[in-house]
Parts: sequence; C-alpha cells; structure tokens
Amino acid sequence: MPHAFLLHLTSPLCGEGGAHPRPPRYPGLYAHGLFFSLLTKIDPGLAAAVHAAPRKPFTLAVLEPSRPSGRGEVVLRITILEDGLFAPLLRVLLRESLDGLALGDHLHGLVRVVATPQGSPLAGRHTWEELAAAPPSRGLRLRFHTPTVFATSKPGRRARYTPLPDPFLIAKSLLSSWQHHSPLRFPEVEAAALQSVFELDLELARFANLRFERAQAAKGFFPGFTGAVEVRCHSDSLEVQRALGILQAYAFYAGVGAKTAYGLGFTTPY
Amino acid sequence: MPHAFLLHLTSPLCGEGGAHPRPPRYPGLYAHGLFFSLLTKIDPGLAAAVHAAPRKPFTLAVLEPSRPSGRGEVVLRITILEDGLFAPLLRVLLRESLDGLALGDHLHGLVRVVATPQGSPLAGRHTWEELAAAPPSRGLRLRFHTPTVFATSKPGRRARYTPLPDPFLIAKSLLSSWQHHSPLRFPEVEAAALQSVFELDLELARFANLRFERAQAAKGFFPGFTGAVEVRCHSDSLEVQRALGILQAYAFYAGVGAKTAYGLGFTTPY
Repeated sequence: MPHAFLLHLTSPLCGEGGAHPRPPRYPGLYAHGLFFSLLTKIDPGLAAAVHAAPRKPFTLAVLEPSRPSGRGEVVLRITILEDGLFAPLLRVLLRESLDGLALGDHLHGLVRVVATPQGSPLAGRHTWEELAAAPPSRGLRLRFHTPTVFATSKPGRRARYTPLPDPFLIAKSLLSSWQHHSPLRFPEVEAAALQSVFELDLELARFANLRFERAQAAKGFFPGFTGAVEVRCHSDSLEVQRALGILQAYAFYAGVGAKTAYGLGFTTPY
Repeated sequence: MPHAFLLHLTSPLCGEGGAHPRPPRYPGLYAHGLFFSLLTKIDPGLAAAVHAAPRKPFTLAVLEPSRPSGRGEVVLRITILEDGLFAPLLRVLLRESLDGLALGDHLHGLVRVVATPQGSPLAGRHTWEELAAAPPSRGLRLRFHTPTVFATSKPGRRARYTPLPDPFLIAKSLLSSWQHHSPLRFPEVEAAALQSVFELDLELARFANLRFERAQAAKGFFPGFTGAVEVRCHSDSLEVQRALGILQAYAFYAGVGAKTAYGLGFTTPY
C-alpha cells in the first residue's frame, strides 16, 4: 500500500537563541542520506538491499515549510512504494528519540510526523486496489513541485536529459513505475498497447508556471522543470482512460521522471 | 537573399479625434490576408502561385509597437525567403499610396516601411552566402516571440501538435526550411546525417519565460509556447557546428515550427 508522509525536522539550535543553519544546500542528496540512516536503524540488511535496488521503492522531496517558523525548520516528504517498508519505518520514527538526524552537515531533531491527509494534503495512503479503481480520465493534470527531468539516453552511451513536460515521457514514466511496484500491474501485452497509445494519442493541452531549474541529485546536477501541466488523450478507449486515471492517482506516490529518490520529480495530481 | 522588414500601419481615424479600432482580433490571419492583397497588387499570378505553394516563401508576425503611440498603430513584420519576391513588393509599398489596407474589418494606412537594422533590430537582410558563412556554434540560442508549435502528426491521420521547445524539433524545422528555400542547401546525404546528429546530440540547456498561449492561425487555434531557449549540441564535429551556426542565423528569417505564414513561430537568435 503506497504511503506518503512528512517529517518535520528542526535544527538543534531551536529555542536557544542561537543562529540557525541556512536551508540545506543539497537538500535532495542530504535527504537521501537521512533516509538511509533511518533505514539502517530499522534493519541494516534491508537498507543495503534498498540501496542496491536499481529502482528505489521510495521517493523523497524537501519542501518549504508552508508557514515559515523562522526556526530552521525543514520538511521532508517521503513516499513508500513497497508494502514491507512503511510499518517498520514509522515504528522507528515514533519510538526513537530522534535528535541526531544528519541532514548534510547539520544535525536535526524530528518534531512531527504527518501521515494523514487531515494533517497535510501532501500526506496519505491508498491501497493498490483503491488506486486501481481510480475514476477513468481523458488525460493527466499534474503539478510538478520539484525539478523534474527525464533520462532520455541515446545509442552510443549518450547520457541525455529532457527537462520538458513531454506527455509521452510523463505517461511512460508513471506506467513503468506502476508496472515495477504494483502487485496489480497490467499484463505485459496490455502495458505495451497502452504505451503505444500514449505515443500516438497524448497531446499537451496546456501548461502554466513552467520554470527551468538546475537541481542537485545524487552525484550530479540535472536540468529540470517545475509547473502545472495538462495532458489530453485523443483515444476513446475506456481501457486507456482507466489506465490514465490510475496513473494520475499513482503520481502522488510515484513522482515522475528521473532521480525521484533524490528529491526530483515530486508531483501531485490536480 | 532573405529579407526582414516592418510595415507600420495606422487606422484611418488617426488625427481625426475619432475612436480607434481595438487591436486586431486575429492578427495573424488578418496579416496573412493583407500580405496577399499586396502581392495581388504586384502580380496576381505570383499571388496565386505563392498561395498554392505548400511551403510559403515568407513569414508574418504582428508586433506590439515598442512605444505605444495610442494611435491605433499596428506593426507587421514580414520576412521573405525567396529572392524574386522582395524587390517588386518593396517597389509597390514605396510607390503606391497605400491607405486602404484591410487588416480584418478595419482599413489601415501604411505610414512607414523599415527595412534596415538601423531602423529596427527586427529588420535586415543577409545574402545566402553570408548566412552560409555564419560563425560555427555549439548550440542554438533562440527567443520565440509569438506562439510556436510543431506539427507532429502520427500515423493513422492523427493531427498532433507539440507546443514545447523540443531541441530536435527546433533544429529539424530550421534545417528543413533551409533545405527548401536556400540555393546553398546541404547535399541530401549531409542533411540526413545532420538530422541524425540533431536527434542524438542536442539537449535543452536552459529555458526562460516559457509561456503557453493558444493562438489563431489559418482556420484553427493552435497551442504554442513563447520564451527564450538554449540548446546545446554534444557533437564535436565542426560540420555540425557550422550547420548550427547557419541555422541560428537563418532563424531570424525563417521562424520556427508550423504556421509561420500566419504569425506563429517568430524567432530571433540571441
């Protein structure tokens, strides 16, 4: 069951009148390190297995606090795409006195965990069955909150990136993640047919507030875009519309594009 | 020799204290009609031939006047991509008392023709030889002033449009126009090789002020983007860099994408 939750962290100088560290310089990279130190507290073997997985079963994003408290607060959004991961992680978070969480060079304390939509519209959970029963849609309406980019490498070992909301690349990214993580994945033949329809029949209907931003993730800098995007599908197939409805809902947990485990591609449907 | 020039038009109520018509509602469409009425004055046979041509040897754009005079002024930018067209057109423009130019429902008078870069940075001319000798470039730096869109139709008579600054589509559009209009076109084999390099080695390096806008052109509305875009080419081939330099300079005259004869895709290098 995919989960999304928020960790509110503050720097240890809070309340002592001291200076607060500046916002983290490489937030995605630091958050990635923090996430793995939490995983290691749960189960070092699990942490190693997740670290080695080519497709990470989680996403991370560092958010601006909605009401800046001036207390050096940082909000981490974590989504979990694999069923076994959430319960033990939350148990550690709620049980342990977590004061020494390293976010880059600075230690932070965990002051709040928000795991429900009542606590934040960016948190919540759905069963795979609920996602698979999402209402059909004639398109996708997505807001990209952190820089989003597609790895579009070419033959001859050419590493290429596409920092544009290409409708086909958006849908292909979501479908591919669904196929990898969901126990209710589409049969291979149907997935291939869907991808072919996406290539032929998706069209960008509108975008707004599209910005270019270079972001640090893993060991490099990546070009990316943020903004709101509407994609329309010309197909009248109900199967296709069902799939788009699922992918639209799933985007809340999966994010879109490359390096979603390092803070990129944090996406919400609208 | 490609030319770019500006026609400054004002509505006939100027100076009479009367009300001025609002800015044209379908500027690209109206400008297209005006251009053909001028062509018809020169040579009805030529007008018919140009009208029937699948690739129009001109582009049009309706500009905002840089210093709004409050006199109902409209500025048309016209570029001419075929050598035989400019001289007779300019002769008519300079000779005739052009008071009854219909821009949509409203008659306009021609108050000024600007054909040199001294008169406006948006006007000028280059010989094909000068364009072909443009300095080599490792990419493209283009500003899209009017909504720009690519016709990316798909098999099965699917009319599809891409309103995004896709680096490959930008370069392919410019190359295809150069091959069609320039007497110094690349040999077919070289053009095919260039297109293949563009597909593999171009990457979007940056964009700024990217906006979505639906624009009227010809008989329909089209989605489009405006903004500034930098494309980088990973190839070290000097031939490729020479071609990019040529296309960068040629963009000033050719524009980019679909419906450039109806006001879309007006582009300047920077």
